[in-house]
Amino acid sequence: MNFLDLTFNMQLTYQPFELELKHTFTIAKFSRSSTPLMLVQLHHDGFTGYGEASMVPYMGESYASATAFLQQVDVSRFTYPFDFEAILDYLDEIAPGQPAIKAAIDIALNDLNGKLKQQPCWQLLGSDPVQMPVTSFTVGIASPDVMVQKLKDAKGFKVVKVKLGSSDDKGLINTIRSVTDVPLYVDANQGWNDCEQALDLVYWLHEQGIKLIEQPFSKTDPDSNAWLTERSPIPIIGDEAVQRLPDVAKAKGIYHGINIKLMKSAGMFEAKRMIDEANKLGLKIMIGCMSETSCATLAAAALAPQCHWADLDGPFLTVNNPYKMPDFLDGRWVLNNGFGLGLSLTESVSK
Amino acid sequence: MNFLDLTFNMQLTYQPFELELKHTFTIAKFSRSSTPLMLVQLHHDGFTGYGEASMVPYMGESYASATAFLQQVDVSRFTYPFDFEAILDYLDEIAPGQPAIKAAIDIALNDLNGKLKQQPCWQLLGSDPVQMPVTSFTVGIASPDVMVQKLKDAKGFKVVKVKLGSSDDKGLINTIRSVTDVPLYVDANQGWNDCEQALDLVYWLHEQGIKLIEQPFSKTDPDSNAWLTERSPIPIIGDEAVQRLPDVAKAKGIYHGINIKLMKSAGMFEAKRMIDEANKLGLKIMIGCMSETSCATLAAAALAPQCHWADLDGPFLTVNNPYKMPDFLDGRWVLNNGFGLGLSLTESVSK
Repeated sequence: MNFLDLTFNMQLTYQPFELELKHTFTIAKFSRSSTPLMLVQLHHDGFTGYGEASMVPYMGESYASATAFLQQVDVSRFTYPFDFEAILDYLDEIAPGQPAIKAAIDIALNDLNGKLKQQPCWQLLGSDPVQMPVTSFTVGIASPDVMVQKLKDAKGFKVVKVKLGSSDDKGLINTIRSVTDVPLYVDANQGWNDCEQALDLVYWLHEQGIKLIEQPFSKTDPDSNAWLTERSPIPIIGDEAVQRLPDVAKAKGIYHGINIKLMKSAGMFEAKRMIDEANKLGLKIMIGCMSETSCATLAAAALAPQCHWADLDGPFLTVNNPYKMPDFLDGRWVLNNGFGLGLSLTESVSK
Repeated sequence: MNFLDLTFNMQLTYQPFELELKHTFTIAKFSRSSTPLMLVQLHHDGFTGYGEASMVPYMGESYASATAFLQQVDVSRFTYPFDFEAILDYLDEIAPGQPAIKAAIDIALNDLNGKLKQQPCWQLLGSDPVQMPVTSFTVGIASPDVMVQKLKDAKGFKVVKVKLGSSDDKGLINTIRSVTDVPLYVDANQGWNDCEQALDLVYWLHEQGIKLIEQPFSKTDPDSNAWLTERSPIPIIGDEAVQRLPDVAKAKGIYHGINIKLMKSAGMFEAKRMIDEANKLGLKIMIGCMSETSCATLAAAALAPQCHWADLDGPFLTVNNPYKMPDFLDGRWVLNNGFGLGLSLTESVSK
């Protein structure tokens, strides 16, 4: 069947969805117990592409902003074969910012593209499933008792990520080390503010088996981040400082690497360009997530084999994932050979 | 790591497991509501290969026979790289018959082999995931009301298989056709006994959209089966008549094709040889199953892209599958890129 010969009658549908978190999530600046998602579908001649926007409150998107955006999207402009660059330019013309809802459309388009081409997204994006990195499991700030319980939940993961920024970061690490010697990633979430103190802490963290540190200082303080990067024995990764493609080049000389998230990059197409740019510049690459379902997780997993570190624990931290859990073996997501994202809607067809 | 340089300390463990069926299952000769399985694991230096014997009662294997067999197996003879042919010869020397428990060992060895080689079994066996056929969903003999309910369960399947052999086969098909025009496979389970009557029924079934017929006459009556094959507009498939490799050549001229099941063939290694032999002889190939968990289903799915038809509905017909359900999209099993079988032990690591 040659789709070029068909009238391309694309349809867009979407539903708000409140994704509930397993644990109330506390990082340096706030707590919350659920995340608003917008689930998006693009339909074409019996094929459906699935996408998702995860709108964590501090990023500024909401059901209202997402709905207003989607109502302005003219899907008749999405003609096959898809010109992802032109489509992203078009979405950027509708409104600046709003990367999460743009990502939802981009992910749905990638899923649909794979289904029309009868290939998995990971294959179309040039990933080798064998190169899949282990995924870290994030543990938020909590009392020692709760921390220990959360670490028990992390059985089966090869790396744990811990959010720092409490009044006693060393005490938190000591609590973790009293129960497990699992490798750790540390996310400071811009919580540090003194260079010398930070460097002392970094040396101490190095002795504790910490493998990377995310965003130590404010994203608006490149000098402190660069100062620490120059001296740190642990890779320093820019997260909040790196949103879309132009931010990659700016990260050079300030961080050892960047954290790419689809909800920041406006989706898979730009994330792939950021990966290529980072490789060109010699920057290391982490791929991360927000609170997400299997849908956005599979979208990120399709690119993860091209990254050095993966932090894609979204579905493990939620209780009402509306899709089937992707396969997860030995601490790694397992890419499948389903067309598109390889997203299964339900656990069992017959139940 | 070069495994050839290591002392190869293989260990075998196994547990009986009663697999409960969703519906009491009735075919021409008996009914039952559960199936005894023997779950088998081969351990080596932190890697575990998983296998499974499904011992449907009419095949003659049992917990007792499986346990007696496993106790005679000297796993120190399973040296890597595995010589599957020599290992199967060794198992056949221990005892004739007992293909299900031999399959359990072979499947576990294949899973372990993939994990040691860091490749999926389907890749090692030369399958192309894109060629995966749809899987039929089996509906047993039941009252019209129950049949209709079972067909509702079959939503999401592209083909339904129906077991004939009741007093009113046409009535059964008419009941199905009153609610769905889904393509049908028919399994006569050796239930027919009059050639001319059978041919009339075959012509009628052809008009009803039946796509293949399994084992119309007794496996010990090659003449009637061959007579029908010569005249039937629908492919006639040998099932009970075809167990292991030597049966493939015997099927030539008697059936259009053969139904390969791992629990008959003593596992994946011999099933692959049967596929190659059938292709050489111009026989069509169906791959089927017994009541099975995700484990044996993934083992069969690894070979299914090399077959014309798949009837791998085991996990859909059971209620206590101890493993995570494999991905299933658009009526097809989705092969994944996990090493070995790609079997996930549980739905979620963190739950």
